[in-house]
Amino acid sequence: MNGQLKEEKVFKDPVHHYVYVQDETIWSLINTKEFQRLRRIRQLGTTYLTFHGAEHSRFSHSLGVYEITRRIISQFERYGYPDWPKEERLVSLCAALLHDVGHGPFSHSLEEIFDTDHEEWTCAILMGETEINGVLRSVSEEFPSQVAAVIKKKYPKPIVVSLISSQMDADRMDYLLRDAYFTGVNYGTFDLERILRVLRPYKGKIVVKDSGMHAVEHYLMSRYQMYWQIYFHPVTRSSEIILRQIFRRAQQLNAEGYKFSWMTRSIKQLLDNTLELKDYLKLDEALAQTAFSEWEQEADPLLSDLCHRFLNRQLYKYVTIDQPDELLLGEVAATLESIGLNPDYHMEIDFPFDLPYDVYRPDRQEGEKREKAPILLLDEHDEISEISLKSDIVRSITGLHQGKYHLYYPEEPLRANRAQLSDRMRKLFQLD
Amino acid sequence: MNGQLKEEKVFKDPVHHYVYVQDETIWSLINTKEFQRLRRIRQLGTTYLTFHGAEHSRFSHSLGVYEITRRIISQFERYGYPDWPKEERLVSLCAALLHDVGHGPFSHSLEEIFDTDHEEWTCAILMGETEINGVLRSVSEEFPSQVAAVIKKKYPKPIVVSLISSQMDADRMDYLLRDAYFTGVNYGTFDLERILRVLRPYKGKIVVKDSGMHAVEHYLMSRYQMYWQIYFHPVTRSSEIILRQIFRRAQQLNAEGYKFSWMTRSIKQLLDNTLELKDYLKLDEALAQTAFSEWEQEADPLLSDLCHRFLNRQLYKYVTIDQPDELLLGEVAATLESIGLNPDYHMEIDFPFDLPYDVYRPDRQEGEKREKAPILLLDEHDEISEISLKSDIVRSITGLHQGKYHLYYPEEPLRANRAQLSDRMRKLFQLD
Amino acid sequence: MNGQLKEEKVFKDPVHHYVYVQDETIWSLINTKEFQRLRRIRQLGTTYLTFHGAEHSRFSHSLGVYEITRRIISQFERYGYPDWPKEERLVSLCAALLHDVGHGPFSHSLEEIFDTDHEEWTCAILMGETEINGVLRSVSEEFPSQVAAVIKKKYPKPIVVSLISSQMDADRMDYLLRDAYFTGVNYGTFDLERILRVLRPYKGKIVVKDSGMHAVEHYLMSRYQMYWQIYFHPVTRSSEIILRQIFRRAQQLNAEGYKFSWMTRSIKQLLDNTLELKDYLKLDEALAQTAFSEWEQEADPLLSDLCHRFLNRQLYKYVTIDQPDELLLGEVAATLESIGLNPDYHMEIDFPFDLPYDVYRPDRQEGEKREKAPILLLDEHDEISEISLKSDIVRSITGLHQGKYHLYYPEEPLRANRAQLSDRMRKLFQLD
Amino acid sequence: MNGQLKEEKVFKDPVHHYVYVQDETIWSLINTKEFQRLRRIRQLGTTYLTFHGAEHSRFSHSLGVYEITRRIISQFERYGYPDWPKEERLVSLCAALLHDVGHGPFSHSLEEIFDTDHEEWTCAILMGETEINGVLRSVSEEFPSQVAAVIKKKYPKPIVVSLISSQMDADRMDYLLRDAYFTGVNYGTFDLERILRVLRPYKGKIVVKDSGMHAVEHYLMSRYQMYWQIYFHPVTRSSEIILRQIFRRAQQLNAEGYKFSWMTRSIKQLLDNTLELKDYLKLDEALAQTAFSEWEQEADPLLSDLCHRFLNRQLYKYVTIDQPDELLLGEVAATLESIGLNPDYHMEIDFPFDLPYDVYRPDRQEGEKREKAPILLLDEHDEISEISLKSDIVRSITGLHQGKYHLYYPEEPLRANRAQLSDRMRKLFQLD
Repeated sequence: MNGQLKEEKVFKDPVHHYVYVQDETIWSLINTKEFQRLRRIRQLGTTYLTFHGAEHSRFSHSLGVYEITRRIISQFERYGYPDWPKEERLVSLCAALLHDVGHGPFSHSLEEIFDTDHEEWTCAILMGETEINGVLRSVSEEFPSQVAAVIKKKYPKPIVVSLISSQMDADRMDYLLRDAYFTGVNYGTFDLERILRVLRPYKGKIVVKDSGMHAVEHYLMSRYQMYWQIYFHPVTRSSEIILRQIFRRAQQLNAEGYKFSWMTRSIKQLLDNTLELKDYLKLDEALAQTAFSEWEQEADPLLSDLCHRFLNRQLYKYVTIDQPDELLLGEVAATLESIGLNPDYHMEIDFPFDLPYDVYRPDRQEGEKREKAPILLLDEHDEISEISLKSDIVRSITGLHQGKYHLYYPEEPLRANRAQLSDRMRKLFQLD
Repeated sequence: MNGQLKEEKVFKDPVHHYVYVQDETIWSLINTKEFQRLRRIRQLGTTYLTFHGAEHSRFSHSLGVYEITRRIISQFERYGYPDWPKEERLVSLCAALLHDVGHGPFSHSLEEIFDTDHEEWTCAILMGETEINGVLRSVSEEFPSQVAAVIKKKYPKPIVVSLISSQMDADRMDYLLRDAYFTGVNYGTFDLERILRVLRPYKGKIVVKDSGMHAVEHYLMSRYQMYWQIYFHPVTRSSEIILRQIFRRAQQLNAEGYKFSWMTRSIKQLLDNTLELKDYLKLDEALAQTAFSEWEQEADPLLSDLCHRFLNRQLYKYVTIDQPDELLLGEVAATLESIGLNPDYHMEIDFPFDLPYDVYRPDRQEGEKREKAPILLLDEHDEISEISLKSDIVRSITGLHQGKYHLYYPEEPLRANRAQLSDRMRKLFQLD
Repeated sequence: MNGQLKEEKVFKDPVHHYVYVQDETIWSLINTKEFQRLRRIRQLGTTYLTFHGAEHSRFSHSLGVYEITRRIISQFERYGYPDWPKEERLVSLCAALLHDVGHGPFSHSLEEIFDTDHEEWTCAILMGETEINGVLRSVSEEFPSQVAAVIKKKYPKPIVVSLISSQMDADRMDYLLRDAYFTGVNYGTFDLERILRVLRPYKGKIVVKDSGMHAVEHYLMSRYQMYWQIYFHPVTRSSEIILRQIFRRAQQLNAEGYKFSWMTRSIKQLLDNTLELKDYLKLDEALAQTAFSEWEQEADPLLSDLCHRFLNRQLYKYVTIDQPDELLLGEVAATLESIGLNPDYHMEIDFPFDLPYDVYRPDRQEGEKREKAPILLLDEHDEISEISLKSDIVRSITGLHQGKYHLYYPEEPLRANRAQLSDRMRKLFQLD
Repeated sequence: MNGQLKEEKVFKDPVHHYVYVQDETIWSLINTKEFQRLRRIRQLGTTYLTFHGAEHSRFSHSLGVYEITRRIISQFERYGYPDWPKEERLVSLCAALLHDVGHGPFSHSLEEIFDTDHEEWTCAILMGETEINGVLRSVSEEFPSQVAAVIKKKYPKPIVVSLISSQMDADRMDYLLRDAYFTGVNYGTFDLERILRVLRPYKGKIVVKDSGMHAVEHYLMSRYQMYWQIYFHPVTRSSEIILRQIFRRAQQLNAEGYKFSWMTRSIKQLLDNTLELKDYLKLDEALAQTAFSEWEQEADPLLSDLCHRFLNRQLYKYVTIDQPDELLLGEVAATLESIGLNPDYHMEIDFPFDLPYDVYRPDRQEGEKREKAPILLLDEHDEISEISLKSDIVRSITGLHQGKYHLYYPEEPLRANRAQLSDRMRKLFQLD
């Protein structure tokens, strides 16, 4: 059962000024321990090592996504648009609030190593024996699976899905603004109020009145800038590499039967790939950092060094290379080995493409997988066009890719053994 | 030895836009592990449980204090004021950067319980076997103790001390602006650029050109508002109470020989009051939160409950009372006991006065201890007056105190046992 | 007849982001020539000569007052508060939009000289043969007089009056924020969104939920600062003095039958005190500045000099004096005369009290005239208190007055005739 | 002779916080009547009729350009870059301050009609019998012509010219930020502080350290958006058309010997094309608006109607057309004539290209006229590249043009005579 709160609750929020809660269900969800846990997981993972302001949590982002969704729906209701299914309000708000609840510590890095998926964990939390499940079930028996369906993008009404998952959804709009605010850059600011005003529910989709095209262009330009200035920053990539190497090493040691002098049940399960929900919920970034702090004293020198590097921000350096050709990489590996390093851990090629963020691409080819609904403009004759057909600037930035190959490595041992290196390697590593 | 960096280093900062580093010594200090540790200690302790944006660390605040100090000195140098001792630049910058380096997790709460003092730890870090000490000693053998003397307010040149410790020092100016930014309130914003422009070194003191009086008034009003809206917020006080009770309980259990199922060496030393520097540096908020998460499963129901409350933000409620008279408190204690609670842990009277923050008071009485240098105005005839003699608004807010007594307690058991309570108690706890 | 616009109209506004127009009547009023005329009258009169950003017009302020009123009412409607009379929406919005429509050029200065009153002109515009009257009459025959009654504070429902005229009305809230924005100071920023959220219609008044007390304190402090930093700035006072002297001189010359080489019908009527509405509406600041530019070439040296001073910002200097005692002023006058100046025009004592702005004073004495409704707090028991009874900070700043006597005069002739002056006069005018 | 002011002067500025004046010469220039006159000329001409906040003057913009130039030079001096010619400081600051001093009212519109050129007037003011010339000559006899040479881009040291005239000069940087601030859009905000930090004097040019490439990209994107959202806004274009038609009509009437019932000497000279400097300086926007107000009552119905439209913002409507083919335009003209309108005044085709603003184009072709120096990046090996060779995003937006043909016309008479129009015309004018 979902009632209205006797008195609206308010959270002070730096990005949206205030977050307003009117529904008992939303209030109860925020107060569950699974949702409070998001306070202990940073929104931007290791980015705080590059931009020291980026210490904000997924808790604040989740409230923000909820608030944007609430504002959109509240406007749809105020104007009484017939294409908005009013009965979907609560399921939309809950999905917006909870869409990230399954994130673990440093998710994007850990998911690669352990092949887990935060969306699956989100659904497990919604459907499992959790406080969140209890709150959702008090609305109705089917409600948890309905909310989960929205998050899995399988809800029968696509308009609900598109609120929180499309090329211009509440999730992205919040994170661009929030990440810009906390890092302190102004690349990510766009005119949220204007965009919210021109959204319209239309035949099962959310479209943009074409008078708002320029605001959307500005949003896409901001997004472009944020990806290249913040999300793909090479120093952040370096810290992610160290992080992944820590967990790869721990996983390997664990597989080899290494006896850790410090361990917790949930980390052990993580390394064994036998995580149960209850223990997954114990994993947060406080625990991860405590683990690094303890593992810094482990006997394994590699694990110890990696943890030391992460905690004290002694990251790998990088050089830009044109193409990671086999010959060059072979020579690099041999060089590292020759001075006692382990190429498996001490070098990594990074190309910022295969990443959880994507730049807007309209994907008009038939048959291709299309994850995110494109941005559609609605003109005065009620005709709809994908935005890059109308906007020169969107067309011109679509498909643009600035990524370069970077080779990451620990600089100090190379510098110390400089004399032994070939000229080519000295040049590559800029040791002259 | 202190050289200039070949290329100025820059940190993007949301409050000051950029933090500029020009000295090798400063750059090396930032990269020490003791300074990097400040990333794992929040600037505002438990305030993030009230204002979810307040997740910023002492690392970012320390950079901010450094940056404000750098700007002040750089202006003193640019105008060539003869009263500024140029040779004190580096010691001032180092003291600004390092003044908080001794803070532990949730300092203000823990210091009360364990009777430690972050300033002493700061000096221990400066003087002990640390990376910071190494960097400072590379300037000169006496340099560590000089920096420590500034922080202890015993440096022979008081103008250096007043940069980082006075009624309007770089420390306060940074934290007011930073805390306002991250909580998202606009109470704390004042015109930093204007204030910096009107500061003057004058006969061993830092004074304010009287044309800047209004900017100072605005700063003091902002400060007043910040104290009462943010720093003394009763919900934050509640989370601090829970936190203290956790450590009091752990300390008591430890003293009684209780066998914790989870413990680390540094926490054990903390509880035993035998902390050594090396272990003190292991204490951070990641560890504290990991401890709470583990102790939530301890056999001791009180410790478990308190940890559960903190982690999941199930805080104590509060009521405002006029005066904490013995009779009333006795009755409250008896009531709590009668329903199985422990007054020693389940009630607390709080009066927001004896706190680490203070509202500006000029303290003109002779002989009285005066911790912070007052704000002095310099007029066109080079005469100096304490600001409250010149400003009506400063005089009118000086000494104002809005604090009220709050009684904190867990609401749920009282509500559950409502029927057993006296009318007076039911009324006090607003259970009707 | 008032219909809804088919499509909401939007104005981009730097202070409120957007101003939304939904009613045909409002849209038509904005497009009348009497309202468009406000574009040619600055909100802050001569303040742009002190703060160069302050070039904003009464047009933008009027839209802002409308927008704040619209937001308040729209919230009252959304929550369905029974104490808000829904049928008063349109009259409230029209009064908010039009409350300043009677302002002439540099109103506050000219009203003193010509003893006119912008509020009377406003009502004349509403009731006379104007486009505005036409639009209002299309709602209903009585509608113009209803809107006028609100502006004259005689409307039978005081809650409507208090929206645009009370100690914390839409008018003040807009001008504080707007003037702060355009001058570029941050003294005037307060949390408008928070204040709007805690306003409640209650028994014919608008009150503030007591949880919003701190936001109101912040608003009052901002107001206090704005008055002393911006509105009473002594350089602005100087430009107002010059302006008044120009019109006094022109009035005097006109009375004496002086033949102006340049004149317009509306200015002639102004000087004759025979203004009709049609001609009053011709008066704007473009015309005033054109007049000064032409009068700079008049034969009368006094008028010419004053116009020259105003246009080229050669303002009078000022000194602060304790009390304007007769003796001193007599000596000053004699001195000015002795060097060929005219004390009637070349000196003025100014005390910033009798001014169109007032600092919040709760005025609790019986029987005294009380123009503006005080700020009332509503507590959880539905009890009401005037805010200074509850807030220490409001009490402490109530009645504070920082004003000082300033003596204004042209500096150049005094400096040129320095040798002739008595020591006392040289000292007074700081000529040493 | 240029001395330093005893005490730095400060202007509060909303965009740069403060503008600092240290030189006597600069202070004297600001106080000349020719510079003060810029207060009566808006920075954005008629844009305030579209964005009501855009009421800021060329006075504030000129101070802003000066301030940015001052900051750049002050940084060049602080770091002691050898490629910066220190002796050029004052001439650079004066040129920055004065570069727009020759602008007349609504310059860009009037220059088209009267074939004048504000740059020539600027030089006439610098070289003629003016207060500005007097101040400049007090530096040295050649100083006025040196400053003029910078403004005419003929100064022997191109680095000085490029400070105030290049693809990323102080002029553009100020107006983008300022126009964004006063209109209230956030399209125009970019990271000025970052850009200033990465500028370097290098072999007679100002270049950008390549680490600042992303900040430059952001600047160029902001510029792109500002052009299309603000500067080329079709409603602003409409008001410019009305304005031009007013002056064309007055010019024509004057040529035909029409007897104006209201006229001033300077406007008469403008219409006769016989302006002398003294009278040119009388022209400002106050006078222009007074003229419109008086001419609204002229006997000539066309002039009267145009003035009425401008003053009361009754602008021409517009429709977008693909290509202005002769046949269509002929039919439009015939239609207008058939209902008594004058195609020479009542229709205009506008294509936003031939405009005083330009989008960044690197112009790499040999031999072509290149007005503005391109943006050059300096890499770590001291090699220089034009930015579009390095930046994908700059390359992709270079040469983009979004302009469309718009046909402007008065809507009311067409609507009133709707029945007479052909279907094709009814469709074109959207009268169905």
